[in-house]
Amino acid sequence: MIGQDLESRLEEAYDRVKKFVHRTPVLGSTFLNKKTGARLSFKCENFQRMGAFKMRGATNAILSLSEEQRKFGVVTHSSGNMAQAVSLAAKTLGVPAYIVMPENAPQVKVNAVKQYGGIVTLSPSTIEDRERMASEIISNTGAHFIHPSNDMDVILGQGTAALELMEEVPDLDVIIVPVGGGGLLAGTALACHFKQPHIRVMAGEPIQVDDAYRSMQSGAIAYNQSSNTIADGLRTHLGDINFPIIQSLVDRIIRVEEQEIVFAMKLVWERMKIVVEASSAVPLAALIRTPEIFKDQKVGIIVSGGNVDLSKLPF
Amino acid sequence: MIGQDLESRLEEAYDRVKKFVHRTPVLGSTFLNKKTGARLSFKCENFQRMGAFKMRGATNAILSLSEEQRKFGVVTHSSGNMAQAVSLAAKTLGVPAYIVMPENAPQVKVNAVKQYGGIVTLSPSTIEDRERMASEIISNTGAHFIHPSNDMDVILGQGTAALELMEEVPDLDVIIVPVGGGGLLAGTALACHFKQPHIRVMAGEPIQVDDAYRSMQSGAIAYNQSSNTIADGLRTHLGDINFPIIQSLVDRIIRVEEQEIVFAMKLVWERMKIVVEASSAVPLAALIRTPEIFKDQKVGIIVSGGNVDLSKLPF
Repeated sequence: MIGQDLESRLEEAYDRVKKFVHRTPVLGSTFLNKKTGARLSFKCENFQRMGAFKMRGATNAILSLSEEQRKFGVVTHSSGNMAQAVSLAAKTLGVPAYIVMPENAPQVKVNAVKQYGGIVTLSPSTIEDRERMASEIISNTGAHFIHPSNDMDVILGQGTAALELMEEVPDLDVIIVPVGGGGLLAGTALACHFKQPHIRVMAGEPIQVDDAYRSMQSGAIAYNQSSNTIADGLRTHLGDINFPIIQSLVDRIIRVEEQEIVFAMKLVWERMKIVVEASSAVPLAALIRTPEIFKDQKVGIIVSGGNVDLSKLPF
Repeated sequence: MIGQDLESRLEEAYDRVKKFVHRTPVLGSTFLNKKTGARLSFKCENFQRMGAFKMRGATNAILSLSEEQRKFGVVTHSSGNMAQAVSLAAKTLGVPAYIVMPENAPQVKVNAVKQYGGIVTLSPSTIEDRERMASEIISNTGAHFIHPSNDMDVILGQGTAALELMEEVPDLDVIIVPVGGGGLLAGTALACHFKQPHIRVMAGEPIQVDDAYRSMQSGAIAYNQSSNTIADGLRTHLGDINFPIIQSLVDRIIRVEEQEIVFAMKLVWERMKIVVEASSAVPLAALIRTPEIFKDQKVGIIVSGGNVDLSKLPF
């Protein structure tokens, strides 16, 4: 099921990206250990360059292109962290980055992408319009399309966070991450599968956008009717490249309510003194909701990012 | 001027406290390096137990007592981090802690002290009332008084943060800390004096409560007419034990405006993704205000704490 070539591709990905991304610290919390009954290690990708793990996948995807391909640039469509990640990774590597963003994206996000050097095209906010706009840019420039989560080089890049976490904390029982588009979850699952297959890989997901949970239940990619979650990084659905990996390697997906996400987010800010975005609090919310699964386990949590609007906090 | 016995007392302090406090991480920020023109190393005492460096001084002060003395407990008066630090350090060491707090202290702070096991006595908010109340407790219990900043064991305990910072970043040119009561500043100055005397020790201070600046100018301890600063940890004045140390070893005190503190605080939250209290942002505000002093210097900043009320952020 899982191609064995992926193990060497994962190692190559890490060799490639480690010069361009931070090796982020792993933090613990005595308070949260007591609160959950587990022993927690937080891999702080909120301290990653540009503030999120997406930097890893974007960097690997660009570095996987030939010199010739890179000249024509890269394209993605995103209103979130991937837009910034592709922009900054591309700038670092001297590659043009075309970013399609919905015309209703907050100005602060558009500005952030521009600051990182991204060339922004605004499109109507439907997915069809964004894809059409990206296709037009590809036709006009010859740029390479990078999907935010359903691209094997992106997935392998995201998996490098788990590689570092396993190196730093060698005897984990579980790794839990948030799931949105599925890139981080699939990458983490692959990294554990190849390096420490005894580790159970899990994800937290908002009930409001529980497409990944339903996909696992039904065996086919499910979609969300609502995008009504504070965890704005988790509104997207799985793809045909990451879903089979998730299906075969992920132990379970735990769903959480919105107020549980806000509660967990506030706990992390107050007790760990780190700024994390709502999506990053979803795994901890899952631990607090279902402590019986994690009791006395050594649990690694990938803190996905820290890009929040400080003027719009939910507490 | 500076007693040579203090060097061995500082080393003893570190040997004593290191089992009871975290060795906090040192973080950098490419963005803030560019912004300031200096090379910054942030010693993150916001990640310290109970959220502030005060844990070091409180722990050392209690450990410096004899077994016999400890039985009678310790007393302090504080509405801030020292109240929590003495409570938690005392609880860890199995010592009763009597905390005198002003009756107008926020309930959340009173609760935090109680959670850490402190025995709270509320007093009218004048300094005379607080001192009288502390004296009464001492008469009744035989407990030992720990001053939040003007106590040599507290000062030496606070100095252990700089010891760790110098070990971690061996070639610093400057260390800058916030100054309120003067315990952290005096401790840092002593640590540098004994270990790396070429390091220039500086402090940042809010203009609104610039007693330390004026004390350095006039040569006598000055007091504040106002307590009108967001940096609520820095409203107190120097004492007769720490002032002579500061006077002889500190290079300069840089004063900053309130809006500069808020700006620096927001920068740290947004760019470093860490939760710091307003007092902790004062040194960075000083760097941004007077970049010419720090240009191309390797600067260590002690991030004093991260205890903030998330519902009352200034941005």
